Amino acid sequence: VSSREFSWLPSEKKAARADFEGAFKRECEAIRHEVEVRLKRSKDPSEIWRVHDYLTAKRDEMDRKYDYRYSILIGVFGRLLRKGWIAERDLSALRGDKVEAIKFMASI
Amino acid sequence: VSSREFSWLPSEKKAARADFEGAFKRECEAIRHEVEVRLKRSKDPSEIWRVHDYLTAKRDEMDRKYDYRYSILIGVFGRLLRKGWIAERDLSALRGDKVEAIKFMASI
Repeated sequence: VSSREFSWLPSEKKAARADFEGAFKRECEAIRHEVEVRLKRSKDPSEIWRVHDYLTAKRDEMDRKYDYRYSILIGVFGRLLRKGWIAERDLSALRGDKVEAIKFMASI
Repeated sequence: VSSREFSWLPSEKKAARADFEGAFKRECEAIRHEVEVRLKRSKDPSEIWRVHDYLTAKRDEMDRKYDYRYSILIGVFGRLLRKGWIAERDLSALRGDKVEAIKFMASI
């Protein structure tokens, strides 16, 4: 399933953008929570550099993962669905063939 | 005042190393505190990336600043004294000429 086959209606683009931003926000919140937990768990002053390493790795991962281009969006959404950053109900504004393709990408 | 003029007794080296590590630890604690304050102040999920930028800059600064070589240690201690990361009383195990040189470096 190549996402290049799909055309996106304006209403779908709007919904997709909101889904994408919602997932990004939720994942940032999870990263933030992890930082807070690590700081709470260890009072070692050098913990801050391990937090820095963690954030450097996460930022790199997020930059690669949150790439909003329609030509690859089915795959991006597939990964977000698989990891739970978007839910199937978030895809209700998309046409059925896109939803099926996203679910397929999430399953592989 | 070139610190190359100074020779370091074993007892001075031991005290200097402890002062250096104490200053590093205090400064890490201050950085950690600043991170905690920033996270408390802003609940924006993206705050985590501003924290990352802050830690990247601080880590670079700390790497440059905490350079333990006897040939430059008078200057390093001068800066730490000026910024308050070590106190004059921390220098009591050092010979008077070194203390004077460190205080001179702190003053310029």
